[in-house]
Amino acid sequence: MQWKLAFTGFGKVAQEFARMLLSRQALLAQTYHLDWRITGIATGSHGCVVSASGINLQEALHCMKKAQSLVQLSGTTAVADTESFVDVCDADMMFETTPLSPMDGEPAATYIRKALQRGIDVISANKGPVACAYQELQELAKQHNAQWRFEGTVMDGTPIFNLQEFCLPAVAIKSFTGVLNSTTNVILTGMEEGRTFAEGLAEAQRLGIAEANADYDLEGWDAAVKAVALANVLMNANRHPREVQPQGIGGLSLADFAKARQQGKTYRLLASATLGDTGVHIEVAPQAVALDSWFANIKGTSSALVIATDLMGEIAVLEIHPRLTQTAYALLSDLLRIHEQSQRSK
Amino acid sequence: MQWKLAFTGFGKVAQEFARMLLSRQALLAQTYHLDWRITGIATGSHGCVVSASGINLQEALHCMKKAQSLVQLSGTTAVADTESFVDVCDADMMFETTPLSPMDGEPAATYIRKALQRGIDVISANKGPVACAYQELQELAKQHNAQWRFEGTVMDGTPIFNLQEFCLPAVAIKSFTGVLNSTTNVILTGMEEGRTFAEGLAEAQRLGIAEANADYDLEGWDAAVKAVALANVLMNANRHPREVQPQGIGGLSLADFAKARQQGKTYRLLASATLGDTGVHIEVAPQAVALDSWFANIKGTSSALVIATDLMGEIAVLEIHPRLTQTAYALLSDLLRIHEQSQRSK
Repeated sequence: MQWKLAFTGFGKVAQEFARMLLSRQALLAQTYHLDWRITGIATGSHGCVVSASGINLQEALHCMKKAQSLVQLSGTTAVADTESFVDVCDADMMFETTPLSPMDGEPAATYIRKALQRGIDVISANKGPVACAYQELQELAKQHNAQWRFEGTVMDGTPIFNLQEFCLPAVAIKSFTGVLNSTTNVILTGMEEGRTFAEGLAEAQRLGIAEANADYDLEGWDAAVKAVALANVLMNANRHPREVQPQGIGGLSLADFAKARQQGKTYRLLASATLGDTGVHIEVAPQAVALDSWFANIKGTSSALVIATDLMGEIAVLEIHPRLTQTAYALLSDLLRIHEQSQRSK
Repeated sequence: MQWKLAFTGFGKVAQEFARMLLSRQALLAQTYHLDWRITGIATGSHGCVVSASGINLQEALHCMKKAQSLVQLSGTTAVADTESFVDVCDADMMFETTPLSPMDGEPAATYIRKALQRGIDVISANKGPVACAYQELQELAKQHNAQWRFEGTVMDGTPIFNLQEFCLPAVAIKSFTGVLNSTTNVILTGMEEGRTFAEGLAEAQRLGIAEANADYDLEGWDAAVKAVALANVLMNANRHPREVQPQGIGGLSLADFAKARQQGKTYRLLASATLGDTGVHIEVAPQAVALDSWFANIKGTSSALVIATDLMGEIAVLEIHPRLTQTAYALLSDLLRIHEQSQRSK
């Protein structure tokens, strides 16, 4: 069987994943008996195209590099917009990486919903839908015998959701705490070394991890949405980002860091969820942590998640200085997971 | 189907696992449709017994607590020794936790070999056979359509082998570095805080993690055998512990720690493996690490493993202050893995 793959969104992450598909094509065929062709690519500003016989992925990447429209690609048909694209892309699997509003998960959630209703498996790098519509979309997937996977929504391709699903059977997660947002962690790590907030922000922008308007990161919303996504999946929390009141890092000054250092401490933006009598409580706030705690040593773009469980005590997973490749790998690992399950059910 | 389970070795870990089986019996039946009975228990000094209709596990635990022989358990038949036990225990799955010589993996490897040849799945908490006979035993398992799993051999039930097998598809591991031995880590953490080597060793013995004769830990052999086990499985290294020349922690003095502290450093016993032109190179030695590195903050009985990969960059897994439950959980997670695969193949 040849998988028919479609992309909604074809930005940095999807392009890196496309390069990975191309460079590992032989490996995937030999080791995993995985064969594929691209039946559609939908972008926001470079057009949406479909092709039953397959789009040349190398040429598509070339178009994007030259900032040209995909519509000129040979053998393709143009489609008006991403929503109608989902109806006609004729894919088995869709890679959903469109820009989105994380507070309501749209328009990604709509694309995912439409795809699942057509029985198309969806792999998403967007945390919004996991935070805002987890239960609904999982039930929809089940109804239509499709899969929806999203390893890349938190800590890139580092196994978090898969770790729980495949490596921690019979374990109940009681709480978690994480350093989940890179922009704020670059700034806090910088301030701890005496650089200003503005210098840290500029550094994060230079690294390509912070948007021009970074308020969403700085006010703790990115970490909050990730915490809700994690809580929904790992703890069955059924929470929504609007129920969280994150505290951002804007209130921290270099004087705060100097004072903390005198007490052997520094600051990290910690996102946590705790199972209590009234359900799962989610909190996002900068916290003073001991300089010799290992949270203090999650620096710059690294991230970490500690999970407290009933049977497996406390374990932590760290992602150390990730690059774009690690985000793209999340899509590949989800693809291989779905492929493996499909092989098995034959 | 009811799983017929047998124990070779019924010490602290196996007993904790037995308590887990009993306390989670309803959960395992409801959630995983997993039903079991115990057809045999073989111990070194409390006898070996088998029973086709099933041994009362609660009573067996009670016997062990009272230091009584298992032979008195109702409905059981005594067997002469563990080796003949494997032939007559009539189990589907065997939990192998006998004391062993880690340098040649015996007698555990012999028990495992015999069980696999009879098509009995084996779950082992013994690292020796993984370090000394990995390829041979895996091939034997395949030949006889049996499974051999051993998550508990390194970092207790923390997913390491399962993480690679089920969560990192298409990823090649290029190297790893870990803090893998608790006894030495308790001693080094103590020395870093000004306590003596002897005090640290006494503390490790009080915690029940160091033997009366702790040379095997102190000379780096435990870490070396774990590193070889990891390298064999994660990197297909085909190495043997006798090829490693570990350097222990005996040479370190409080003066060394004081000197290191002046340079912002401390010591950890690091075990590493690196893929090079001539195969996988394994090294175990105390290393000075920066106080603000997170290896420095793996303290006491905690352990950590950093894995450097091609597609997933660097990730780390930490086990924080584990207890006996976490070692026993390794056996449960392996049992559930085999059970799930058996359900699937039906």
